[in-house]
Amino acid sequence: MLESRRTVGDVGEKELLRYLRARVPQGPGVLVGIGDDAAVVETSASTLVTTDSLVEGVHFRREWSPPRLLGRKALSVNLSDVAAMGGLPRHAIVSLCLPAETPMAFFEGLYDGLLERAAETGVSLVGGNLSATDGPLTITVALLGQAERPLVRSGARAGDRILVTGHLGAAAQGLKLLAQGARLDAEGLLSAAGGWTESSSEALTHCLRAQLDPSPPLAFARAVVEQDLAHGAMDLSDGLSGDLEEMCRDSALRATVNAAAVPVDPHAAGFERAKGGDAFSLALHGGEDYQLLLAVAPDRVEAVRDVAVVWDLPVTVIGEFAAGSGIGLVRDGGVLPLPARSHQHFRK
Amino acid sequence: MLESRRTVGDVGEKELLRYLRARVPQGPGVLVGIGDDAAVVETSASTLVTTDSLVEGVHFRREWSPPRLLGRKALSVNLSDVAAMGGLPRHAIVSLCLPAETPMAFFEGLYDGLLERAAETGVSLVGGNLSATDGPLTITVALLGQAERPLVRSGARAGDRILVTGHLGAAAQGLKLLAQGARLDAEGLLSAAGGWTESSSEALTHCLRAQLDPSPPLAFARAVVEQDLAHGAMDLSDGLSGDLEEMCRDSALRATVNAAAVPVDPHAAGFERAKGGDAFSLALHGGEDYQLLLAVAPDRVEAVRDVAVVWDLPVTVIGEFAAGSGIGLVRDGGVLPLPARSHQHFRK
Repeated sequence: MLESRRTVGDVGEKELLRYLRARVPQGPGVLVGIGDDAAVVETSASTLVTTDSLVEGVHFRREWSPPRLLGRKALSVNLSDVAAMGGLPRHAIVSLCLPAETPMAFFEGLYDGLLERAAETGVSLVGGNLSATDGPLTITVALLGQAERPLVRSGARAGDRILVTGHLGAAAQGLKLLAQGARLDAEGLLSAAGGWTESSSEALTHCLRAQLDPSPPLAFARAVVEQDLAHGAMDLSDGLSGDLEEMCRDSALRATVNAAAVPVDPHAAGFERAKGGDAFSLALHGGEDYQLLLAVAPDRVEAVRDVAVVWDLPVTVIGEFAAGSGIGLVRDGGVLPLPARSHQHFRK
Repeated sequence: MLESRRTVGDVGEKELLRYLRARVPQGPGVLVGIGDDAAVVETSASTLVTTDSLVEGVHFRREWSPPRLLGRKALSVNLSDVAAMGGLPRHAIVSLCLPAETPMAFFEGLYDGLLERAAETGVSLVGGNLSATDGPLTITVALLGQAERPLVRSGARAGDRILVTGHLGAAAQGLKLLAQGARLDAEGLLSAAGGWTESSSEALTHCLRAQLDPSPPLAFARAVVEQDLAHGAMDLSDGLSGDLEEMCRDSALRATVNAAAVPVDPHAAGFERAKGGDAFSLALHGGEDYQLLLAVAPDRVEAVRDVAVVWDLPVTVIGEFAAGSGIGLVRDGGVLPLPARSHQHFRK
């Protein structure tokens, strides 16, 4: 254990690497782990590869996220991509760009979270890279997975029902609550209510966790693939409106969404109602839900529901794919085009 | 082709991703390429995985490196890790963290270099991630490769000869020359001499290319593995002194290095001589040569030389491994301990 008052600059790259080598277990399927020029892992005939970064000031703030939860999320956003392909996550490498003044306690907390989340999902950390930076702390994870029959975005067919897992809008609500001063501690427990009362604590914890510690439906997605229940899938990371637009374009189809069916997160909705608003827009455009969008033939919808029950996961039919392009939102008897207002990097 | 006067912030993430999808060819062994939640690639029973980042202000300066060369180097530093394992590089994913004001011309130049280097080495770009950042531009590549019998750092045996490929110190000299104002253009041709005369142009180009566009000996390393000629290997990225120290520790051996045998780069040496110095320290501690350190049984050294001739690559026996620990430098008849003074992140 390194003294937690020191910074990574006090400790230096070589000692940090030794710390990681001693700490990270050599998991299953790892032939050469951390410490060599490259890792060597067991793979099957086809391998999923994805990468995602969390950049300080863009994706997180250190004062809003305990390092343990940040480590968990850095892996989870990649797990979501593997879930969307119906894959089994296997091996991860982590690239950290750290300012020299980063406290060792932060570094250790980050790895607590990464390793814990990896253990929960059967992932082995097999290596990575540490670099100094003069800028924001950046965590980039590359994740390898297994998928014999990957679910792609372009697989949807006309007539398929559009299904979403979970409830939408909680992560975006969590972000609003963080801005209001609500906080989770390193254990994921509520440590500040941001002006809300005691009676909101369950809802606060729920929305903050959705934002800070998302949990993509990996096992459910795997079961859907194993039973061949979906034609295509995509994860809901940028927001339903933009993500569904992508899926429509890639599948060369039009989507019709029934507004009343969109599963708005009830806790997120409660916070909006308390302020006289509604959470529908958060559910449509908020993003970061890390749930799944699925294209399912009508005669398979019940089977998907059966699988979801096993994993205690809500699934909702929100509309259907048809020939054409664009998204139509059916609301109050009329159909309006749904503009994509999801998060897009670089554009202000 | 996007207008090159615009910035990535003008263009936005979705259009950048469409640009990349249209531009990046779907290479061999790619089942699902750029644009889905994850890529799907063909793999064999064991897969090499490595990652390395180039961080602006730490690993490069935009005024010193044309974007095309930066793109090449971002892949090459990862190719070096695969070479050190004796592997065949196959698939790469690229995570870019870009300030919104990054010119599109820079973005396109970076991908010119990445794609060109990928094509040269048989690598397919299969995906990645784009993120905004308020801080330094950061390029993180994760590279997958194939290696049936990977060469590891811990494989050296007592009695093995220590071999290095290429000449050492040119990349470190290149860095000094950049600081003096010498420059390469996007084609890798000399565009500024930094105060040196016409007669130095070949040497300038050589050292600047070693720094800005390194070329790890991939094919040589692959042949060494195929003929089972080495017990262990490691790449020379941080500098001979520090890298050899790592290899000694991992192999639980001592190294004795003959100072007179260290293959100091002749061009790097010429620049030092002109200033009344010598380049031995650059060769020992300078780093970024992206050459290989090999542990080879005495009766295999000639066979390694034969392979090197095929690839027109100098290889030099600089010493040997023995029982014990640490590194002894034999110089002027005496043996002195060689302190590791290589580059280490975070420590100033």
